[in-house]
Amino acid sequence: MAKNAKNIKKGLVIVNTGNGKGKTTAALGVMTRAWGRGMKVAVVQFLKNENARYGEIRAAEKMGIDWYATGDGWTWKSKDMDETTARAVAAWELAQQKITDGGYDLIILDEFTYPLKYGWLDTDEVLGWLAANKPPMLHLIITGRYAPPALVDFADLVTEMREIKHPYREQGIRAQAGIEF
Amino acid sequence: MAKNAKNIKKGLVIVNTGNGKGKTTAALGVMTRAWGRGMKVAVVQFLKNENARYGEIRAAEKMGIDWYATGDGWTWKSKDMDETTARAVAAWELAQQKITDGGYDLIILDEFTYPLKYGWLDTDEVLGWLAANKPPMLHLIITGRYAPPALVDFADLVTEMREIKHPYREQGIRAQAGIEF
Repeated sequence: MAKNAKNIKKGLVIVNTGNGKGKTTAALGVMTRAWGRGMKVAVVQFLKNENARYGEIRAAEKMGIDWYATGDGWTWKSKDMDETTARAVAAWELAQQKITDGGYDLIILDEFTYPLKYGWLDTDEVLGWLAANKPPMLHLIITGRYAPPALVDFADLVTEMREIKHPYREQGIRAQAGIEF
Repeated sequence: MAKNAKNIKKGLVIVNTGNGKGKTTAALGVMTRAWGRGMKVAVVQFLKNENARYGEIRAAEKMGIDWYATGDGWTWKSKDMDETTARAVAAWELAQQKITDGGYDLIILDEFTYPLKYGWLDTDEVLGWLAANKPPMLHLIITGRYAPPALVDFADLVTEMREIKHPYREQGIRAQAGIEF
């Protein structure tokens, strides 16, 4: 701990980034831990398809966690960038509402780095809004590759998940239900 | 995907290692995802204190997940290494029993790298036993720093969690209940 440690209790801004597995998954782990303590949790997914029946969505339903899947899949491959941008803006507006009005202890903005990276949202505007509006005790977790440097500066805790070994590439093993999705 | 991809379905051996946050937490995320799909999950903790009331233990109770906390805290600081070794051996025997007889879909061996790293268990013996006895469809997640090279070789999927920025050191912020434990 730093010499000037103040033993501060505050809502953390946590970023899980990097090219490896475990960014969303670690956020789900914190979701579970917080839920275990009776905290109020919401998840806003920026890219994953709202129709998918991923294991984490089934779990969130069983746990009574508020889950908002706003994406249209891996949208940066979309030919229709206007719609993609509009979806990102709408998802961010939903997230803003949950942040200010939801009474949550923890909000996960899953895959939120991509709208920032691809410019569908303005990183400086987003961070300025968070600085002014995030309730002090609210914990926020942002996941995704390519976390912009300004987001890293803004965050309290940043972890890079680095791929060391991956079964798809090395052994041709497919993604496993219940483990990876 | 590799050219020789076979689209194999098998139980993965997953290792989360590195000096950053998210090793245990990502395992908890997979636990939640698997539980969401109705899979049978067990967690064996090798170092964490069995008396602690961490958020994840509270969650596991609510979820009906089998949770075995076998450690006596951060035991490698222990003066009494014989007891530490005996505890690691007993925990590994428990894990072996769950692996062969438990009918689980997923077993998490949390902080299991430390007994290997510190020689309380013999890595070659452990991996030899797993190679011979792990049910083919059982997924196994092993967490902790200092994953031995032989374990990395043995695993299907290895992720290193790297610390980029940490609030304790930089801002003197303490660990937050529900988020980090």
